[in-house]
Amino acid sequence: MIQKGVLLVVSGFSGAGKGTVVKKIMSDYDNYSLSISMTTRSPREGEVDGREYFFVTKEKFEEAIDNDELLEHACYVSNYYGTPRKYVEQQLESGKDVILEIETNGALQIKKKFPEAILIFVTPPSAEVLHGRLAGRGTETAEVIAERMKKANEEALLMQKYDYILVNDELNKCVENLNTIISVAHQNPKNNEAFIETIKKELEVYK
Amino acid sequence: MIQKGVLLVVSGFSGAGKGTVVKKIMSDYDNYSLSISMTTRSPREGEVDGREYFFVTKEKFEEAIDNDELLEHACYVSNYYGTPRKYVEQQLESGKDVILEIETNGALQIKKKFPEAILIFVTPPSAEVLHGRLAGRGTETAEVIAERMKKANEEALLMQKYDYILVNDELNKCVENLNTIISVAHQNPKNNEAFIETIKKELEVYK
Repeated sequence: MIQKGVLLVVSGFSGAGKGTVVKKIMSDYDNYSLSISMTTRSPREGEVDGREYFFVTKEKFEEAIDNDELLEHACYVSNYYGTPRKYVEQQLESGKDVILEIETNGALQIKKKFPEAILIFVTPPSAEVLHGRLAGRGTETAEVIAERMKKANEEALLMQKYDYILVNDELNKCVENLNTIISVAHQNPKNNEAFIETIKKELEVYK
Repeated sequence: MIQKGVLLVVSGFSGAGKGTVVKKIMSDYDNYSLSISMTTRSPREGEVDGREYFFVTKEKFEEAIDNDELLEHACYVSNYYGTPRKYVEQQLESGKDVILEIETNGALQIKKKFPEAILIFVTPPSAEVLHGRLAGRGTETAEVIAERMKKANEEALLMQKYDYILVNDELNKCVENLNTIISVAHQNPKNNEAFIETIKKELEVYK
C-alpha cells in the first residue's frame, strides 16, 4: 500500500538559508516534490506552465479563490500567487512529501486549511549570525540589511505558531534533521489510515 | 539553558510489547524518567513511597482530584490511581523526558489537560502477530487470550486519536524509532521557549 506523503511548509528569516536547505533536501533524498504555485503574472523566458508555475488569467485565479481551490494566496505587485490544493493532494496521494517554501502569513493560512501540514521555521542560531550572513553576502546595501532584520523581528513573533523550529547552524545536519522530522511525521495516524483500517478489520474477528 | 523535557504517553494492545519498549528506552538512553502514580492502595512489601507510587489516603486523593492536581485518574478494584501533574512538571522542568505507560482512556484524558504530551500507540505489525505473541507466552489460557484480543479490537478504534503509531516489529528498531520521535518533539516551539525569547530579544534592536 502507498503511504500518503506529508506536506511540509518551510518559512524563516531572510538569510536563514531556507532556499539552500530546500534545494539540498530535494537533491539528497528522492521522496520530496516541490509544490507548484498558481500565478497571474506572465511567464518569463524559459518558464513552462505546470513546471515553474501554473499560469492563469485573473478571472481564473479569482474563480479558484471562490471555489476554495487554493490552500493560500496573496497579491504581490498587482499579481496573484497561490497554492493549488489539487496539485498538492495529487502529489501527497502518490506518496511524495510536498515542500512549500512560503512566508509566515501564507504558512499560517495553510495550517488553517490543512491542519496536518508540518510547519517548519528555519532560523540561524542567533540574530548576530543572521546579521553576519546578510552582511557577508556582500550584495545587500546597509539599508536592505536593516529592512530584513526589521522584518525578522516581526516574523519572530510568529515562531511559536510553527510545529518545529529548525536551527540552521551546519547545513548537512540541518537537512538531515529536517528529513528526520518528516520521517517521524509519517508515523502520524493520518498517514497510516490504510494500516489502521487493515488491523482494525483483522481484529474484528475477535469481537 | 536547560531545555524542557517532553511528556510521552505510551499505550497499546496487551501483547504489543509496550513494557519491553519502555524498559529498553530507559536503559539505552539517559534522558528518560518514569512518571510516578499516586494511589490509595496500600504499599506492598519493598515498595517505597515516592519511588513505586505516591501512597495517599482516599481523602487526600479526592482532594487532589478537586484541586485539579492530577493529569488523569481512574479507579480499579476500589482503589484510585492517578498521575500527579506536579511531579511530571518538575521532571520536565529539569530537562527529563517523562514516560507514562497507560491505557487508552487515561492517555486521552492527559491529552486534554496537557496538549503538548506526545501520545504513542504501540502495535504489532498485524493482528495475527499479536495473537501469536499472546499465545506464544504459553502462560495465558485461551479464554484470557480471547479477552485480550477483544479488548484490542476496542482499543484499535482509538488509534487515530494518538500522535504516532509505533509499529513494534523488531525491538531495537522500535526503541530507536521512539527515541527519534522524542528528539523531534524537542524541536517544538513549546520546548524552545528560552531560545525563542532570546532571539526575539536580540532582534528587537533592529525594530
